[in-house]
Amino acid sequence: MPKINAERLLADLDHLRTIGGVETGVIRTALSEKDMEARRWLKKRFEEAGLEATIDGVGNVLGKTSKPGPVLLIGSHSDTQPRGGWLDGALGVVYGLEIARALSEDPETANLAVDVVSWQDEEGSFLGCLGSRSWCGVLDPEAEKAATGRDGTKLTDAIAAAGLTDVPRLTMEENRYLGYLEAHIEQGAYLEEAQQHVGVVTAIVGIRAMRFKFHGEQNHAGTTTMARRKDAATALYELAYRVNQEFPAVAGERTVWTMGRAVVQPGAASIVPGYAELDLQFRDQDESILDRFEEIAAAIADDINSRGKARVEYTRSRLPVRPSMMDDGFQKHIAAAAEATVPGKWQSMPSAAGHDPMVITAKLPCAMLFIPSIGGISHDFAEDSDRGDIAIGCQVLADAASSILQERRNG
Amino acid sequence: MPKINAERLLADLDHLRTIGGVETGVIRTALSEKDMEARRWLKKRFEEAGLEATIDGVGNVLGKTSKPGPVLLIGSHSDTQPRGGWLDGALGVVYGLEIARALSEDPETANLAVDVVSWQDEEGSFLGCLGSRSWCGVLDPEAEKAATGRDGTKLTDAIAAAGLTDVPRLTMEENRYLGYLEAHIEQGAYLEEAQQHVGVVTAIVGIRAMRFKFHGEQNHAGTTTMARRKDAATALYELAYRVNQEFPAVAGERTVWTMGRAVVQPGAASIVPGYAELDLQFRDQDESILDRFEEIAAAIADDINSRGKARVEYTRSRLPVRPSMMDDGFQKHIAAAAEATVPGKWQSMPSAAGHDPMVITAKLPCAMLFIPSIGGISHDFAEDSDRGDIAIGCQVLADAASSILQERRNG
Repeated sequence: MPKINAERLLADLDHLRTIGGVETGVIRTALSEKDMEARRWLKKRFEEAGLEATIDGVGNVLGKTSKPGPVLLIGSHSDTQPRGGWLDGALGVVYGLEIARALSEDPETANLAVDVVSWQDEEGSFLGCLGSRSWCGVLDPEAEKAATGRDGTKLTDAIAAAGLTDVPRLTMEENRYLGYLEAHIEQGAYLEEAQQHVGVVTAIVGIRAMRFKFHGEQNHAGTTTMARRKDAATALYELAYRVNQEFPAVAGERTVWTMGRAVVQPGAASIVPGYAELDLQFRDQDESILDRFEEIAAAIADDINSRGKARVEYTRSRLPVRPSMMDDGFQKHIAAAAEATVPGKWQSMPSAAGHDPMVITAKLPCAMLFIPSIGGISHDFAEDSDRGDIAIGCQVLADAASSILQERRNG
Repeated sequence: MPKINAERLLADLDHLRTIGGVETGVIRTALSEKDMEARRWLKKRFEEAGLEATIDGVGNVLGKTSKPGPVLLIGSHSDTQPRGGWLDGALGVVYGLEIARALSEDPETANLAVDVVSWQDEEGSFLGCLGSRSWCGVLDPEAEKAATGRDGTKLTDAIAAAGLTDVPRLTMEENRYLGYLEAHIEQGAYLEEAQQHVGVVTAIVGIRAMRFKFHGEQNHAGTTTMARRKDAATALYELAYRVNQEFPAVAGERTVWTMGRAVVQPGAASIVPGYAELDLQFRDQDESILDRFEEIAAAIADDINSRGKARVEYTRSRLPVRPSMMDDGFQKHIAAAAEATVPGKWQSMPSAAGHDPMVITAKLPCAMLFIPSIGGISHDFAEDSDRGDIAIGCQVLADAASSILQERRNG
């Protein structure tokens, strides 16, 4: 088994955080000057690791091995949120780099082939998973043309400003890859609370959302009898409460649902509300649970409508994200490596946040490994992980990559 | 019985609506130029009706009869909401004027003594019921100094601009009055829906309000498990729903409650809300119902707190308004007059909106009469009443005033 160099791994992560570093965090949004500076530095580090490295026309950095295949692709993204943490994305890219180095350095694994990648704009500063979409050939040209950043800058202008307009875009080389592995911080507190060091991701959860619009009749809160009212807020409160009562019977252990946006209009204590809106979002790795949730919420709305008071309309308020199942075989390799490194201190779990494998699973078997986030914090300057956990995660992923590749060679 | 002159009554109301008239509505907020113009016109009309009329230091217009007492005071207010209707307030003032004229014109009632009044700023452009408070001697000098209009103008400056700073303020002449009568549009649709022409007001309802503050923990809607959440909005939805479930068992026929303001923060579909606020207001003529409502809402909040999730705080969010009971004897006179004029087409009912008698009941027995509002609309340019109903209401109040005064003379 290869032995990763924890000191080198952490030194690379520490260096990467200085590019765009602000206080304890990092500001390195996709295609910004700092983002491109980080990608040029990664390209150099990939080359120093013996890989043939390229920055492509959207900013993906791909380091290709010259070893004969089959090849495992390992990586993540190096762009950040507008006020991001130092590990989100960066961790998985540097894991890929360190694993490529560690495998090459060990005579027993020196023949195993690993490519390393940093995808562009996973965080969606312009268009979420831009880089992996482009590489998988599923980037919609219309969506690319329409995409703008938070300040209104067009994606196409940002690509031009980064000097990438005429640079070729890489797409997946057919028959080269065995699959894709990505490590990430958990972005939740589940591993920390369970006092575990590694999470083996079973699936990236699907996400659906519904928007409810409640049409009532605005009236005087003193002179309008209860019987006469069509109170939009009363309907909202009922729907929200019943959702919270009825969903648990259908939910799995990790299913989540949230009604984080509620608006009551005109919003005065003395006025019976004439209009209200409620957003309901839910996530699970099991599509049948998401289906049932939609049915239950719709049935509650229909029941409220049947009374002829405030009228409820509902629509899907975002394109559904389907659950992305991680490859079973890869999961077993990661689990075995975790059990060898931290016996009993790992577990299988879904990813509640989105990642590039949501795109890549359509083309390649994928797997993901999580390490604990301190306090469950991510997308924030305060994001951090224990340095011991960072090393453990990389060793486990290196062992898994090694055993996946060796199994294929031997099999 | 006196016979009111419906043509003259409606002509006066039609003239009054031209002062500050805009489209079908009226903009005549307290102490504005148009408000003072209307008050000067009313003073002249009071004088033409044989009354000795005065505009006092806050703008109250009082028309005093020279007939020997006991005297009934009849009136309302002539100021309007920022975009008000033509009848709210104006109706009751012109009723008083017409009743004084009609009684004087009938030899059988010519000796009956009626004073007529238009109170200042019932609508609270600066300070609600300013005029009746001043007249009853319960205007708090500190509140008067602090009062400002919607645009920040100080009440004292508005009084100065109206030329009233050095004008004496009238206060109630002790032992002069038998009581106070006021007519008003219903401002609701109860009479219209019941197809009735007159409402005999039993009480002006009391109002209480509570504000609930929900303290939760803001979190990621994907990575925070349901078990770990302290969702402020979930607590709000539950409290609001349970209030709507539990209040009906305690409510009277006309009790109303409203949760017209709900705020969920930060208010994004993908974020578990960390904070929320809910306003609950309730009104009834029976204080024991208001007491029970406070207890029920508090018990629900305490129950939610007992779970150790989001924490609910609650406070009274306004000074409680106590119910104002109308005089039983006066009610009987108005009821008898209504039955004589529109048999079976009247009813007793509480007033769900506030009026000057809330202040005046502390000093004098009061009674109120309602006529139907078309579509229940008030405080709006679209406010209107049937002209036949306007005449009926005035005749009923004239008959009631006459019988109250005659009973006292004979009794």
